[in-house]
Amino acid sequence: MKLWQKEGVTTAEQIERFTVGRDREMDLHLAPFDVLGNLAHAHMLQTIGLISTDELSLMTDELKKIYRQIDAGQFTIEAGVEDVHSQVELMLTRALGDVGKKIHSGRSRNDQVLVDLKLFTRDRLWRVAEATKRVFDRLIGRSEQHRHDLLPGYTHLQIAMPSSFGLWFGAYAEALADDMFMLQTAYRLSNRNPLGSGAGYGSSFPLNRTLTTELLGFEGMHVNVVYAQMSRGKTEQTALTALAAVAATLSRMAMDVCLYSSQNFGFLSLPDALTTGSSIMPHKKNPDVAELLRAKTNRLKALPMEVTLVMSNLPSGYHRDMQLLKEILMPAFDEILDCLDITDFMLEHLQVKSNLLDDARYDLLFSVERVNELVLQGVPFREAYQTVGREIAEHTYQPPRELNHTHEGSIGNLGNELITTHMEQAVAGFGSEVTQQAIRQLVH
Amino acid sequence: MKLWQKEGVTTAEQIERFTVGRDREMDLHLAPFDVLGNLAHAHMLQTIGLISTDELSLMTDELKKIYRQIDAGQFTIEAGVEDVHSQVELMLTRALGDVGKKIHSGRSRNDQVLVDLKLFTRDRLWRVAEATKRVFDRLIGRSEQHRHDLLPGYTHLQIAMPSSFGLWFGAYAEALADDMFMLQTAYRLSNRNPLGSGAGYGSSFPLNRTLTTELLGFEGMHVNVVYAQMSRGKTEQTALTALAAVAATLSRMAMDVCLYSSQNFGFLSLPDALTTGSSIMPHKKNPDVAELLRAKTNRLKALPMEVTLVMSNLPSGYHRDMQLLKEILMPAFDEILDCLDITDFMLEHLQVKSNLLDDARYDLLFSVERVNELVLQGVPFREAYQTVGREIAEHTYQPPRELNHTHEGSIGNLGNELITTHMEQAVAGFGSEVTQQAIRQLVH
Amino acid sequence: MKLWQKEGVTTAEQIERFTVGRDREMDLHLAPFDVLGNLAHAHMLQTIGLISTDELSLMTDELKKIYRQIDAGQFTIEAGVEDVHSQVELMLTRALGDVGKKIHSGRSRNDQVLVDLKLFTRDRLWRVAEATKRVFDRLIGRSEQHRHDLLPGYTHLQIAMPSSFGLWFGAYAEALADDMFMLQTAYRLSNRNPLGSGAGYGSSFPLNRTLTTELLGFEGMHVNVVYAQMSRGKTEQTALTALAAVAATLSRMAMDVCLYSSQNFGFLSLPDALTTGSSIMPHKKNPDVAELLRAKTNRLKALPMEVTLVMSNLPSGYHRDMQLLKEILMPAFDEILDCLDITDFMLEHLQVKSNLLDDARYDLLFSVERVNELVLQGVPFREAYQTVGREIAEHTYQPPRELNHTHEGSIGNLGNELITTHMEQAVAGFGSEVTQQAIRQLVH
Amino acid sequence: MKLWQKEGVTTAEQIERFTVGRDREMDLHLAPFDVLGNLAHAHMLQTIGLISTDELSLMTDELKKIYRQIDAGQFTIEAGVEDVHSQVELMLTRALGDVGKKIHSGRSRNDQVLVDLKLFTRDRLWRVAEATKRVFDRLIGRSEQHRHDLLPGYTHLQIAMPSSFGLWFGAYAEALADDMFMLQTAYRLSNRNPLGSGAGYGSSFPLNRTLTTELLGFEGMHVNVVYAQMSRGKTEQTALTALAAVAATLSRMAMDVCLYSSQNFGFLSLPDALTTGSSIMPHKKNPDVAELLRAKTNRLKALPMEVTLVMSNLPSGYHRDMQLLKEILMPAFDEILDCLDITDFMLEHLQVKSNLLDDARYDLLFSVERVNELVLQGVPFREAYQTVGREIAEHTYQPPRELNHTHEGSIGNLGNELITTHMEQAVAGFGSEVTQQAIRQLVH
Repeated sequence: MKLWQKEGVTTAEQIERFTVGRDREMDLHLAPFDVLGNLAHAHMLQTIGLISTDELSLMTDELKKIYRQIDAGQFTIEAGVEDVHSQVELMLTRALGDVGKKIHSGRSRNDQVLVDLKLFTRDRLWRVAEATKRVFDRLIGRSEQHRHDLLPGYTHLQIAMPSSFGLWFGAYAEALADDMFMLQTAYRLSNRNPLGSGAGYGSSFPLNRTLTTELLGFEGMHVNVVYAQMSRGKTEQTALTALAAVAATLSRMAMDVCLYSSQNFGFLSLPDALTTGSSIMPHKKNPDVAELLRAKTNRLKALPMEVTLVMSNLPSGYHRDMQLLKEILMPAFDEILDCLDITDFMLEHLQVKSNLLDDARYDLLFSVERVNELVLQGVPFREAYQTVGREIAEHTYQPPRELNHTHEGSIGNLGNELITTHMEQAVAGFGSEVTQQAIRQLVH
Repeated sequence: MKLWQKEGVTTAEQIERFTVGRDREMDLHLAPFDVLGNLAHAHMLQTIGLISTDELSLMTDELKKIYRQIDAGQFTIEAGVEDVHSQVELMLTRALGDVGKKIHSGRSRNDQVLVDLKLFTRDRLWRVAEATKRVFDRLIGRSEQHRHDLLPGYTHLQIAMPSSFGLWFGAYAEALADDMFMLQTAYRLSNRNPLGSGAGYGSSFPLNRTLTTELLGFEGMHVNVVYAQMSRGKTEQTALTALAAVAATLSRMAMDVCLYSSQNFGFLSLPDALTTGSSIMPHKKNPDVAELLRAKTNRLKALPMEVTLVMSNLPSGYHRDMQLLKEILMPAFDEILDCLDITDFMLEHLQVKSNLLDDARYDLLFSVERVNELVLQGVPFREAYQTVGREIAEHTYQPPRELNHTHEGSIGNLGNELITTHMEQAVAGFGSEVTQQAIRQLVH
Repeated sequence: MKLWQKEGVTTAEQIERFTVGRDREMDLHLAPFDVLGNLAHAHMLQTIGLISTDELSLMTDELKKIYRQIDAGQFTIEAGVEDVHSQVELMLTRALGDVGKKIHSGRSRNDQVLVDLKLFTRDRLWRVAEATKRVFDRLIGRSEQHRHDLLPGYTHLQIAMPSSFGLWFGAYAEALADDMFMLQTAYRLSNRNPLGSGAGYGSSFPLNRTLTTELLGFEGMHVNVVYAQMSRGKTEQTALTALAAVAATLSRMAMDVCLYSSQNFGFLSLPDALTTGSSIMPHKKNPDVAELLRAKTNRLKALPMEVTLVMSNLPSGYHRDMQLLKEILMPAFDEILDCLDITDFMLEHLQVKSNLLDDARYDLLFSVERVNELVLQGVPFREAYQTVGREIAEHTYQPPRELNHTHEGSIGNLGNELITTHMEQAVAGFGSEVTQQAIRQLVH
Repeated sequence: MKLWQKEGVTTAEQIERFTVGRDREMDLHLAPFDVLGNLAHAHMLQTIGLISTDELSLMTDELKKIYRQIDAGQFTIEAGVEDVHSQVELMLTRALGDVGKKIHSGRSRNDQVLVDLKLFTRDRLWRVAEATKRVFDRLIGRSEQHRHDLLPGYTHLQIAMPSSFGLWFGAYAEALADDMFMLQTAYRLSNRNPLGSGAGYGSSFPLNRTLTTELLGFEGMHVNVVYAQMSRGKTEQTALTALAAVAATLSRMAMDVCLYSSQNFGFLSLPDALTTGSSIMPHKKNPDVAELLRAKTNRLKALPMEVTLVMSNLPSGYHRDMQLLKEILMPAFDEILDCLDITDFMLEHLQVKSNLLDDARYDLLFSVERVNELVLQGVPFREAYQTVGREIAEHTYQPPRELNHTHEGSIGNLGNELITTHMEQAVAGFGSEVTQQAIRQLVH
């Protein structure tokens, strides 16, 4: 007797459960995008004479109704219906009879799921971009607020040179600006139309793919139908790679927060609401939020490899394996959005210690300042370096605590405006207004 | 305004949701094991005088009651209760008042979750071992059944030499026997007692850790308390590595099934119940089960890296990051068990084509047979090799279809008994009877 | 006695070997770029008065001399010299005495290696882009050449619908166009100036970072000095991610070639020069080149994770760990360039079989054509689908071998010009001319 | 014009370079093992009558001569010779003429490389085990030496409870003992004989595989010939997984060393010989050795995934892709051995600070001691916990610095003997004496 027979499960159910898995749950995320794809496809079918103007009108009315239902949270995939595409087609056919059945001409479930996934990914990447921008703004704000709060700078985790909270916050802001370029690239690669590629080998109907490209606000088309199918996996990979870039920035920041909150550093503290206690140690205030932020973002960094493993060495053409990519991709968006929100909240409430460098243990941070002081007095650099080394060894070294850093990006000249411009260029490159306008036109 | 404020969620809820996440859901898997840990700890507390014999009796009665509740599927973690450990302690305290509160002496939530995870992992690894053994038996069975059904053997995906279904099924059986050694190792490394390590620094109470080790049926103890804590992450990693080994075997078999089911090979077929059709191509019978098996097992191979990413470069000592490991580990067991069951089912129903090698396109498979024929007639090997090459080029080559392979592990002498012995040694090494007996004694 | 003492190695040597490792070998790749960084830094030092015009002139003459030496392959890192930066400074000081020593004012080895790595990465990414473009052109060429050679199209590795070599080659061309956007992004993120960030905390000298940004042809600056340092790891990660995208395309193509070369498919063949034989099977012609291409590109896909593992959970600030990234990054460029060249060569010589679809075993490929035929005769799609299914079951099905696919990207309308435009946009976005002109100006 | 034509390289050379790559360099590692395989095969051929006793005698004399040459470092693969197997066969044939040619009867290069790799991997895993044991012994030694040197214990990187250097060193020792079980498993899975599997489909000669299994000191046989071939990739994977386990332990220890060496912790210091300075900061002493140890071991953790990527979704049967596994596996052994030696050296010289807990900043470490003090006075645990919390808040808390931890594995009872026993069991399980004796017999 087999395990799967134990619980009164019939064979068919077992197979059903294995092959469908969490796919219907995942498909719910695609519902609005499936309707959009249907709308564009219907418009196109009319222009090539496969449906009449009247039929188009009936279809679009019904599809917009379904779209509003989804928006209102009233859409479900009924028991026994295989996926979101079948559900939408079923609702259409129920309402319109034979007219509804005509929608599937000139397409396959393969290009339907492809177009849904492109629209979904594009949408979610834009949401991630917006949330990233909010964290960026928060970081720039705190950088400006703490431009005068000095912080020990480390190399090799050893005391090195003076830094500041202005620099520390600003550094992560600039990191996010670079990450935004990765998000932009992922967005643009997902912003290409696969509709019309059928099962990956096109159609003998005279489809107008340029029209659906415009109607759905795509930047362009996946031209070659074999490639349109081959973009499955690649789209997910690129999107997850961009999320991983953002995640890496957040995870590093979280590591700094954990370290700087340790009593041995004591540079930062979190309000009580953001810490937890211990079941046996009455004195504990643990930075759990930062730790979980670190862990969750580190975990997100594994996802591109997961996609790689599913896709590696599959010959070209569709394979059912690809269904599983939804379960990797979709929850990742929720997770990164959650992490970005919590980061913003944590950054808002992070308490910065002042006057850290007054502590004598940080005196050596100023040794380069002392070297440069001598250089400016005319001592050659290598000689000045030796002199200060000797002063330190002989305990005659006096730290010159006055800092005068003026160049771009230094303590005294943070350059946050330059960084902001860089970020704004990244955001502008998405071209998301064009897309949003096309979608508004399609559904209203 | 922030995203997390939008939906009327208060800050505390947002933090709560972020830090707790799916942890309570995960914790339900730990419930029976938490009770076992409590039982062993209670017995031990009595022997060192921290509770009386009467108190012990009250506690064990109540704990066994909870254990039966869990077994009957009636256990839940109540709203507002943080985790499974708190829930069990709460139930105990509700029932026993002050006596219940004494159970937390000499331990921390850290070693509680550690011991729960060890017991859980040990249990699940054993279930995986059992399911793996079932698939092994199926493979050996089919190997014997098809010992005379020849199959083209490939190298470089080029036709190479004759093989057989007897060899093909048997090969995967032997692979699983080797994988069983990985499962055994993971089992043994999870079969060590961390209880008594407290928060990773032990306790000033005179705990008797040898006693809890015996009561819980552990093979041994994680002796050093700092290491007991450090085993977190390592236990998960080792378990997932073993699952990945099994997954790799299944995934390769699934690839073979997909390939061999292709019309261009046509070696295997699946009954209709195990295939699906296409929404546009009326002729399709797709091997979706094998494809999803391949994809799911490939995905499982990513999990050890996910654990690595969460744990890398964390200094010693507990970090909240480790909570996330549950979400990686626990669903993986369900997934591999599901994959093993489906593999068994697929193997049961796989239809093997007979007389494949009669097709002239496989004539060249016998070229080495022809070479060896000449060698046995006294022609030196290198010369015979040249001769047959010439015969092939000049189309005078006659394939000697009579095969006479007799050595261990060859077509004519599969060696399935040797392979079965190897598997049985692997299974015996778990030592799971000792464990099971200890657990039975503890709860009855 | 220890292993490292065995061979007469002193402790210091052991440590030296461990810490330096392959770093000096790696550093040779950086030599020309180190000189460029020195040239720009020298110019800048003069503008802020830290060296005189005469000193600048001496320095630049000498640096250009070294640059020419490197170009001529005459540069080495002398025994006992730690790295490329020290070697260049040593040569400068040998030639110019005290003047040479002044070059290290206002910088640290940290920002020196940063700027060298940026320049190196930028250079190599451009070379990869050029090689990718060459393979793209080859693919487009062969696509056009074989637009009329039909090929079975598969889904689930099952015979699906007609495809063509025109589509197959073109699909990989379009894949490379998308990959080029990843290369572009990596290029642009590496095309930012970190010089002036010192050890990650800037300098008290009034450095003019805008000037060095322009002199070195950078698109912009890593503004924040802490971030400039933090870009280490991120630059490598992004570059390797882009290489992995190209690698994934090549690896999938190689898989197709291996499969299609198998006698069971027989769609493609490789000339003898590109195949190998077997030591025991006289009939073998194995597609080793395609297999090694697949393996090498699959291996390249692991490298972003390797960088992730080295960098994960390191707090901000320089760590010596980062030195190791060179050994991951630098050989990867050689490998991908090698793979691209071999791909081009393989594609040039790949022999395509004609008239494949005349074989009766591919009759079912035309079932959708038959369905669409009926649809165009007025039969509703779902009904036509049933009819054809019945025809197939009853063996009355007649494949309509006349294909008439006309839409964008289909068999009859490959759209290779659109794909080429897409590729050209990707290449234009690098802005590599600006860079190259700046470099020419700096060294001449 | 193509890149690969630039340097006067002919096509054939380009293909040669691409397909051979670093393989000949890698093959040198296999030389002694190839001779062992030849010796065993020759003995076996004689027993089944394919060579005469005289021929065997000639062969074994010559093979032992080659073995001694290799041992003396005088073996090379000549230009034009493809691999180590061909080189050995060539030397044999040169010396013995036709007799030498007979050695290739009944085997293929596939099972030759398989057996070489098994013998090589087995050998190197044993070396790693020995080096691991040396580090283990060092750790136990230092643990005993510092059993009274207290150390702050952290959870969440927050001050938690008292720990000790005795515990800290001992924890890593116990970690290595667990890792030794992974090494043992990898050793045992590599200790199985694939010889006789030919190209993966066996041979029509009546090979005696049990004999070669015994002669080569294998624990057992890979019975099924298809599986013997399939073990390629799996052997490498398992070995690298075991190395990754050791690496993870070393990397975590290195992270602790880096952190504890930071001035903000100041628990450990390294002698000057193990630290480096800065080019601009005269005060720096950086723990580069620990950082590079961390980076190198983190990088090693990526290698199992690299193997996975090369092997994923390859159908059964040999593929040339597998050649590349040598380049992943072989350098990894050198790297881990190097890391283990350096770890031993670093541990030997690590300087431990005494009396750390006298610093008032660590007073709170003793809060649990204070709670337990109250519990032992009869106060219920939860009440005692509240009391101490209040004492801390009201600054009346007095840390009870007297520690009295007595249970197994605690500060006062390290349990190093138990840990040592655990390690010894792991080492005994390799069964390496049997193997070594067989090898000695074969070559003498």
